[in-house]
Amino acid sequence: MQTLSESRMFGGIQGVYSHASAACGVPMTFAVYLPPQASRGPVPCLWYLSGLTCTHENAMTKAGLQAHAAEFGLALVFPDTSPRGEGVANDAAYDLGQGAGFYVDATEAPWAPHFRMEDYVVRELRQLVQARFPVTDRHGITGHSMGGHGALTLAMRHPELYASLSAFAPIAHPAASDWGRKQLAAYLGPDETLWQEHDASLLLATKGWARDLLVDQGLSDQFLDLLKPEALATALATTRTAGTLRLQAGYDHSYNFVATFARDHAAWHAERLKG
Amino acid sequence: MQTLSESRMFGGIQGVYSHASAACGVPMTFAVYLPPQASRGPVPCLWYLSGLTCTHENAMTKAGLQAHAAEFGLALVFPDTSPRGEGVANDAAYDLGQGAGFYVDATEAPWAPHFRMEDYVVRELRQLVQARFPVTDRHGITGHSMGGHGALTLAMRHPELYASLSAFAPIAHPAASDWGRKQLAAYLGPDETLWQEHDASLLLATKGWARDLLVDQGLSDQFLDLLKPEALATALATTRTAGTLRLQAGYDHSYNFVATFARDHAAWHAERLKG
Repeated sequence: MQTLSESRMFGGIQGVYSHASAACGVPMTFAVYLPPQASRGPVPCLWYLSGLTCTHENAMTKAGLQAHAAEFGLALVFPDTSPRGEGVANDAAYDLGQGAGFYVDATEAPWAPHFRMEDYVVRELRQLVQARFPVTDRHGITGHSMGGHGALTLAMRHPELYASLSAFAPIAHPAASDWGRKQLAAYLGPDETLWQEHDASLLLATKGWARDLLVDQGLSDQFLDLLKPEALATALATTRTAGTLRLQAGYDHSYNFVATFARDHAAWHAERLKG
Repeated sequence: MQTLSESRMFGGIQGVYSHASAACGVPMTFAVYLPPQASRGPVPCLWYLSGLTCTHENAMTKAGLQAHAAEFGLALVFPDTSPRGEGVANDAAYDLGQGAGFYVDATEAPWAPHFRMEDYVVRELRQLVQARFPVTDRHGITGHSMGGHGALTLAMRHPELYASLSAFAPIAHPAASDWGRKQLAAYLGPDETLWQEHDASLLLATKGWARDLLVDQGLSDQFLDLLKPEALATALATTRTAGTLRLQAGYDHSYNFVATFARDHAAWHAERLKG
């Protein structure tokens, strides 16, 4: 693991690191924020998965989460959204390939060799973070848009790894959205039953979520029809899943929305990770 | 208007009153809490509509709202849930007739002469409260179970009267529930298109709600299948209605649930009524 930068922030340390990822077969960059409390012992850890076109950097610089992580004593991990580089497959579209990993392990050409973001996030990077940073084994997960999809689906697929869950404007029903059908077909092949394993609204009915969850969705979100919050709302209530769904008037899809509600999410995770 | 009792509570006054209701054609009892702030001038007013079998008294004694009303400077009004008395029609079932007015104006025999709870709540009792108590014209409405149904439907049917809205475990889709179909048929007759005008999940699609709303629902609620929160969740998200839906793990249908979240609802209304 190589340190690309470290600097003091809210009494803690915001770092950016690179490591040779075996899962993705290329070097991967990620960011970790350690709150002041981490200097006195291990702290719980909140993962933030980013959306389409993002790297580790967008949320790190625009979500304002570090102030809240410092207040509540949470470490933050910001992974990249896909493998990258010259030897890595890509697509001209902004929503497929590099910057658009969708947090699945691709089985189809040309993506299968490198696009293994599920394995990377839930196993390889987690092991690295736990080995190299002062964090406990109490982890929560959140994310925005494609990263909200990632947070919801990875938590439901690996509930033993995540003690708390939230999402900002998640792609909530990708198997029925233009943000999902193209990508799941490309990465997983044409069998739609495989896509259902990576669709939060459908996973609620099959795997469920035994804890509670928090979801914020802006009602002036320019991508509302692609995100399909109504599918998630229906699934949550029908499956009697505990949680809070907030439909926020006037907020769009941007990091202005994420930053506005970032403290609520940090508090949500802190209450559950430290309880 | 006759004062049945008044006593000091949290620095304000909890009173119980009776008046001859023209709408219902019988004497009606109701309770009003005035917070300490009301001694210095008019305050905003939160209406609490109660559920099946309740009178004005249940929430007044068990919901714990007065402490929060005193903190936030809100008056509280607790109406009865139906007309009562020897000359008033009734039914042997707990969920029809006296104690089960469903906040509609009955058109059918034998209910039509007295069961006019919508007109009573939105017009007659409101005029009385505004004339006789130091309240402003900024009113909010909430309620529990049948009263949650009442709060949601009366607010959507009379949006000019209510600046804030919430509900605890509302009967969310009475036109499709055994808590609703029997009563709406009895009070309004067999034409189901008339029932739709008193169904919160259906009203969202027709009249909508232009502000935001807060709904809490316990997931250990023994009447969950009758309340149908999934219909409301779907309608809220599909119609892009602003608001917060919280599915609360472990809470049942009782006033223990209402009391737990009463402060959140009081704060919700205060923020909107005083803004």
